Amino acid sequence: MKYTYLGPEGTFSEAALLSVPEAAEAERIPSHSVPAALSKVRQGEVDAAMVPIENSVEGGVTATLDAIAAGDDLRIVGEVLVPIRFILVGAPGIRLDEVRVVSTHSHAWAQVRGWMEETLPGADYVPASSTAAAAVALLDGTPDYDAAVCSPIVADHHPELNVLATDIGDNANAITRFVLVTAVKGGLPTPAPTGADKTTVVIPLPKDRAGALMDLLEQFAARGVNLSRIESRPTGEALGMYFFSIDAEGHVDNLRMRHALRGLHRVSTGVKFLGSYPRADGRKPIVDPHHTDEAFARANAWVDGL
Amino acid sequence: MKYTYLGPEGTFSEAALLSVPEAAEAERIPSHSVPAALSKVRQGEVDAAMVPIENSVEGGVTATLDAIAAGDDLRIVGEVLVPIRFILVGAPGIRLDEVRVVSTHSHAWAQVRGWMEETLPGADYVPASSTAAAAVALLDGTPDYDAAVCSPIVADHHPELNVLATDIGDNANAITRFVLVTAVKGGLPTPAPTGADKTTVVIPLPKDRAGALMDLLEQFAARGVNLSRIESRPTGEALGMYFFSIDAEGHVDNLRMRHALRGLHRVSTGVKFLGSYPRADGRKPIVDPHHTDEAFARANAWVDGL
Amino acid sequence: MKYTYLGPEGTFSEAALLSVPEAAEAERIPSHSVPAALSKVRQGEVDAAMVPIENSVEGGVTATLDAIAAGDDLRIVGEVLVPIRFILVGAPGIRLDEVRVVSTHSHAWAQVRGWMEETLPGADYVPASSTAAAAVALLDGTPDYDAAVCSPIVADHHPELNVLATDIGDNANAITRFVLVTAVKGGLPTPAPTGADKTTVVIPLPKDRAGALMDLLEQFAARGVNLSRIESRPTGEALGMYFFSIDAEGHVDNLRMRHALRGLHRVSTGVKFLGSYPRADGRKPIVDPHHTDEAFARANAWVDGL
Amino acid sequence: MKYTYLGPEGTFSEAALLSVPEAAEAERIPSHSVPAALSKVRQGEVDAAMVPIENSVEGGVTATLDAIAAGDDLRIVGEVLVPIRFILVGAPGIRLDEVRVVSTHSHAWAQVRGWMEETLPGADYVPASSTAAAAVALLDGTPDYDAAVCSPIVADHHPELNVLATDIGDNANAITRFVLVTAVKGGLPTPAPTGADKTTVVIPLPKDRAGALMDLLEQFAARGVNLSRIESRPTGEALGMYFFSIDAEGHVDNLRMRHALRGLHRVSTGVKFLGSYPRADGRKPIVDPHHTDEAFARANAWVDGL
Repeated sequence: MKYTYLGPEGTFSEAALLSVPEAAEAERIPSHSVPAALSKVRQGEVDAAMVPIENSVEGGVTATLDAIAAGDDLRIVGEVLVPIRFILVGAPGIRLDEVRVVSTHSHAWAQVRGWMEETLPGADYVPASSTAAAAVALLDGTPDYDAAVCSPIVADHHPELNVLATDIGDNANAITRFVLVTAVKGGLPTPAPTGADKTTVVIPLPKDRAGALMDLLEQFAARGVNLSRIESRPTGEALGMYFFSIDAEGHVDNLRMRHALRGLHRVSTGVKFLGSYPRADGRKPIVDPHHTDEAFARANAWVDGL
Repeated sequence: MKYTYLGPEGTFSEAALLSVPEAAEAERIPSHSVPAALSKVRQGEVDAAMVPIENSVEGGVTATLDAIAAGDDLRIVGEVLVPIRFILVGAPGIRLDEVRVVSTHSHAWAQVRGWMEETLPGADYVPASSTAAAAVALLDGTPDYDAAVCSPIVADHHPELNVLATDIGDNANAITRFVLVTAVKGGLPTPAPTGADKTTVVIPLPKDRAGALMDLLEQFAARGVNLSRIESRPTGEALGMYFFSIDAEGHVDNLRMRHALRGLHRVSTGVKFLGSYPRADGRKPIVDPHHTDEAFARANAWVDGL
Repeated sequence: MKYTYLGPEGTFSEAALLSVPEAAEAERIPSHSVPAALSKVRQGEVDAAMVPIENSVEGGVTATLDAIAAGDDLRIVGEVLVPIRFILVGAPGIRLDEVRVVSTHSHAWAQVRGWMEETLPGADYVPASSTAAAAVALLDGTPDYDAAVCSPIVADHHPELNVLATDIGDNANAITRFVLVTAVKGGLPTPAPTGADKTTVVIPLPKDRAGALMDLLEQFAARGVNLSRIESRPTGEALGMYFFSIDAEGHVDNLRMRHALRGLHRVSTGVKFLGSYPRADGRKPIVDPHHTDEAFARANAWVDGL
Repeated sequence: MKYTYLGPEGTFSEAALLSVPEAAEAERIPSHSVPAALSKVRQGEVDAAMVPIENSVEGGVTATLDAIAAGDDLRIVGEVLVPIRFILVGAPGIRLDEVRVVSTHSHAWAQVRGWMEETLPGADYVPASSTAAAAVALLDGTPDYDAAVCSPIVADHHPELNVLATDIGDNANAITRFVLVTAVKGGLPTPAPTGADKTTVVIPLPKDRAGALMDLLEQFAARGVNLSRIESRPTGEALGMYFFSIDAEGHVDNLRMRHALRGLHRVSTGVKFLGSYPRADGRKPIVDPHHTDEAFARANAWVDGL
């Protein structure tokens, strides 16, 4: 088995992948971007990719949402929640009060801005393509900044880094959610239902908006399916043209979910199924008596018997 | 073949039955009440019964609604619309201006009250068990009234009746709708879909009302099924406990109707199917592209293929 | 003060009226029909009329529903619930096993039919204009029947009646609901809110049905107003043209009800307000925090302050 | 008058601001970030700020959405749509086929990636804090890249830039929408209704999700208010906690919008009003007869007159 993740080494993506037992013992190669990671999956170079999809502070990871939605050849087969901790590392020998310019990924910067304004009010910001890249470059002595914001894992990989401060995130409960993505053909199998599952779909919004979105949501609500995430993304064609990326509670093998998916397909034939997989938090949905598999099965049997 | 209808001879029910080609050539026997007619069907004494279910002026015929709903052993296999005309017939020799007391069925009385107040303002009213019975009794010379309101058919059967006035209904467009009811076991077969069909169901309203009724209606609306009749009836248990008698546009063999029925069964397991049959007016429903049989079939195939 | 009720003396309507303290001490005159009683109110001959509107077994009293709905000059100012008990009274000297023909109002007949089929299986039925009239006529010795079904009150008024059986109703919990109706101009005042009130409205259903009914119901549901009665009645124009008679929980002085009524007026400008009045059972509605008067007042203040 | 925009000079934000007649003649100062621009508005240093809020390819500008939503002291008073064109500029003397490393803002990079893969397949990417900054730095000769992606306006400001290619955007119809933001206190006045307006609100989603979102949308739909944008953003507290940023068609002075806002406040008291302003495209909404100002006014008058 072979896995990829949003690299370089030391990213939260790598931490997420390491929490998957099979992956911890398999070959793991970093990718320099989410599209690159998914491309490896699509071309069969790896069995699966671990990529971030959502952060409790920054929101949806648009690169991932758009890249997954772009075809119907990928499946999500698992999710991992990683608490996000940030540290500040400096160039060799530098002291915290000497830092003038800081680099990191823009998402990380957004999550430490409060701490920065308080501790290093005059510091300038230089964007980087990843938190780990920003940190590691400090060891070369070449970059045009004095310090970098990164995950504690980077310091574990590179003990020679000069840790200036730890736990500098503005939100102590920040969590990033990662998904493990495989190929429909030749990839990992769809996990069996566990009773605490999620299903991810992508749905283009038909023409007229207000009513159309309610029509889509109604397909879930009418079958007692709760949503745990809803995200709108532009289709790119014009302002006001959207698709929705949705996580719904339940597995495609639950009858309430099958019926909701059928309803979605009728109102928006472009709907894409991106996978059913166990919830990381193991929380089981409360299903009212009208929406159990048994209620659906009885109703179907009644109509078939007429 | 053998049919019954709400008698005696000369009622609008008989007229409705005569419009059914098979019945016009078969044996036809009157019943003295709707429950009596349906009882003959249930016990296999006749093949089908023609009974009134709805009048455009007086509303639902509660005796019929309740009697049909009482079991699940009956099926509606056809409907007939009969324009309602009323005439006034008198005792032999009496003149219109001599009429002091008028008898008829209470439903008929309600439909000629305007004409009566204008033409015979002082006339008293005596209720009768049917319009035809009120009229025919005049020929015996025994009743305690001078005239009766009945259908023109009664005068056709009894030319010796003294017709005092014709077309005395207050509403020239009054129509009564009759249904042909058979037994589930051993009765007439369910008619095949024609593209212009109705389906009749009876649904007990679960506990809490406002929301529950919307839940029921939503099952139809979500599948693009329009309703042509909705009637609430008490269950008899307590004030505020209802069942609903509903006619929906479409046939149980249409996928949108099958799915609506499944949905109904989930929200109210006591739902009863009372039949699918061709509309008397032949009007085809407008089905939007999301709710055609093809759209349902494609959606089902898509989910099954995941 | 002067009141009328659906007579003659001894009807359940009189019993309902007697339960209203003011009416018990005022002048009370019977009317021979619901339209006649309401006509007296409209013409200022009486201050109010007590008429039946709904029975837990037989359903809505269509004569009352239609007569109240016909104008917008009437208001309901109170309701009374009367448990319905039936007795059988006979011609003088007759024994129960000698009864061959029974008379009563058709609604009463429907409620004792089970008892009749068991106790007097061969008995014929003759309709009457009221239960009391059927009973009292027995004292004349003239009618063409042997016994009558009526309320125990009739026997209280006429101790000379020959009571053959008591408590013969098929449903021991049968209840009839009566409403006290006054004129908008010069009639009794609208009762102040008590916290346990009902509001009655009449709403023509706009053209297209399925969706239109949901639109109407949505006006109540969206403001957290529950319905305790919903009844469809034909407008008389054509099959499939309805108005709905609805009792909603709350008083027109509650903001949630005012907003629901405004919403109704927008979707169906022909809506009629027939009154707000205390519930006979004193049950207070459960109002969720979004729909209290305070929540509405705060929301209005917020928007006005923008 | 004094305005700020997302700088430096030459950005699409400056172009948007220049299209506002009053601003074109006033003092205009760049801000280095959206929060910095809005901070100047909040502190009264400028009268208004022009900032990007939405791109037809990249979606919502989260920095703007979050910064505007963070308080209730800002108002949007206008919007501008700017077609997005990209050019590639190089270090002095460099030829297109010599470019190895390209810098630009990550949003711009996402919009030219197709062109890059085709034209410069091996090129590396270095992120920058703005497109203009990336381009201007080339003139210093210091940066660690050879070329930058920026707007044609930058080349207008700096004719000495070496333009290597024009119109390199992957989507020829790409549009960015900018909003002009002022302070509630002491800022520009709310524009009067024009008949073609938008209203922007921010609404925290109450606890339970699926149903809650439908409740919010229902407040608009029930008053015939269409939505032109809906965006979910995390509140930052936990995964699955969202607020929604919504543009609705209409002006706060339209009764349908006032009632929708009242309804929103009842279901989510934390709703924030961010302004009503003319649509850039001048398109008037189609308002059905139930939702005109007149229909609302008539309904209110009817209830007030009861």
